[in-house]
Amino acid sequence: MNIEAYFKISYGLYVVSSVMDDKLNGYVSNTVFQVTAEPARFAIACSKNNYTAEMIQHSRVFSISVLKKETRPDILGTFGYKSGRNTDKFSGFNFKKGTTGAPVLLDDTLAWFECKVVQMVDTGTHFLFIGDVADGDLLNASDEPLTYAYYREVKKGKTPKNAPTYMDTEKMKEQANSTPSDKYNCTVCGYVYDPARGDPDHGIPAGTPFEDLPETWTCPVCGAEKIDFAIQET
Amino acid sequence: MNIEAYFKISYGLYVVSSVMDDKLNGYVSNTVFQVTAEPARFAIACSKNNYTAEMIQHSRVFSISVLKKETRPDILGTFGYKSGRNTDKFSGFNFKKGTTGAPVLLDDTLAWFECKVVQMVDTGTHFLFIGDVADGDLLNASDEPLTYAYYREVKKGKTPKNAPTYMDTEKMKEQANSTPSDKYNCTVCGYVYDPARGDPDHGIPAGTPFEDLPETWTCPVCGAEKIDFAIQET
Repeated sequence: MNIEAYFKISYGLYVVSSVMDDKLNGYVSNTVFQVTAEPARFAIACSKNNYTAEMIQHSRVFSISVLKKETRPDILGTFGYKSGRNTDKFSGFNFKKGTTGAPVLLDDTLAWFECKVVQMVDTGTHFLFIGDVADGDLLNASDEPLTYAYYREVKKGKTPKNAPTYMDTEKMKEQANSTPSDKYNCTVCGYVYDPARGDPDHGIPAGTPFEDLPETWTCPVCGAEKIDFAIQET
Repeated sequence: MNIEAYFKISYGLYVVSSVMDDKLNGYVSNTVFQVTAEPARFAIACSKNNYTAEMIQHSRVFSISVLKKETRPDILGTFGYKSGRNTDKFSGFNFKKGTTGAPVLLDDTLAWFECKVVQMVDTGTHFLFIGDVADGDLLNASDEPLTYAYYREVKKGKTPKNAPTYMDTEKMKEQANSTPSDKYNCTVCGYVYDPARGDPDHGIPAGTPFEDLPETWTCPVCGAEKIDFAIQET
């Protein structure tokens, strides 16, 4: 079947966060949805590989921050493309500790919810965490939420490997043939890697083709990985 | 908490259909989302009161038709506001019998999927049906999907009582004070009830205030109920 069909399904984009002992973490999720109104109950699909999934299983609480349409690239980069196992994602961002103990990201957040897990469903590569709303608020009534469609089509954003909606074709697009002079765009934050300039601040001399960058090289702006870059369309 | 916070969660709008023996039915859903990519697996939240829920429990198959932004009001009215227990919702619409046996609505459909249920989760008032994609296709690459936000904010649509996102406040808005001369809009299809004209085709004489319409009266265009009308803003 034509896998473009999957891109007609609508999603928002959220930072889902949790806590374990004194560690806080969160990740960018597009699968947040209400499953019942009475009680107000949300379900989220979370990759078993996510550090946050480990935290939610342990603490049985999570928070949801609804991101606004023009969310800062570093928020998407940090929460969507870095791992909390080796980064304190919340450092440098405004957040509060909620009544459940879960951190709630406040930057670029239109509304937030805190949930207490009532069911955990193993759906294969992902858990569905189902939680009742314990607290929440509207922070910004006027701005529109960031949608997955807007992120993909306007921001040219891609889907992290852990997302339920990840498509291998996106990886394939990465492997398009290129020439040593091609510029590459960070699909997370829009930073342009220009081989003529290189990335001297991070030890990459001018004249280094994108292909020759070490696999450990990351976007100097948002921390996205090499795989998250796409050839600049000319 | 401010319940407007819930309206910042993004959803699409879909017709989810199923089959039981020789009966076909479908309903308008806003809670359709992919939960894993490998295998391609969807979850849908479905009210236990929905006739379609009964069918899915029996046949363990369902289809998803992704509605386009400018979906015909009679599709939303028929699939969203009528009950398949006493209506053949598919009569008069284009659909096909899928490989699973579930009907697939084709009118105003951008893309469709057929799923075989692999898990059923009882979340209280609703079931979560989790199904693997058996078939599907993209019918229209260029049009945008209908989103719940567009339906609510632009179309002034409301949420059926069985939706996971149903809010009592919407009911309250219905009960706003009104005068016998007030015109009322059908929030499903936009039809205007004008007391000066009445609805003679359905036995409602001119001069009948909206308040005096029998509770059994429905929208002559799309079949929405009285509760689905709102006072026309002037």
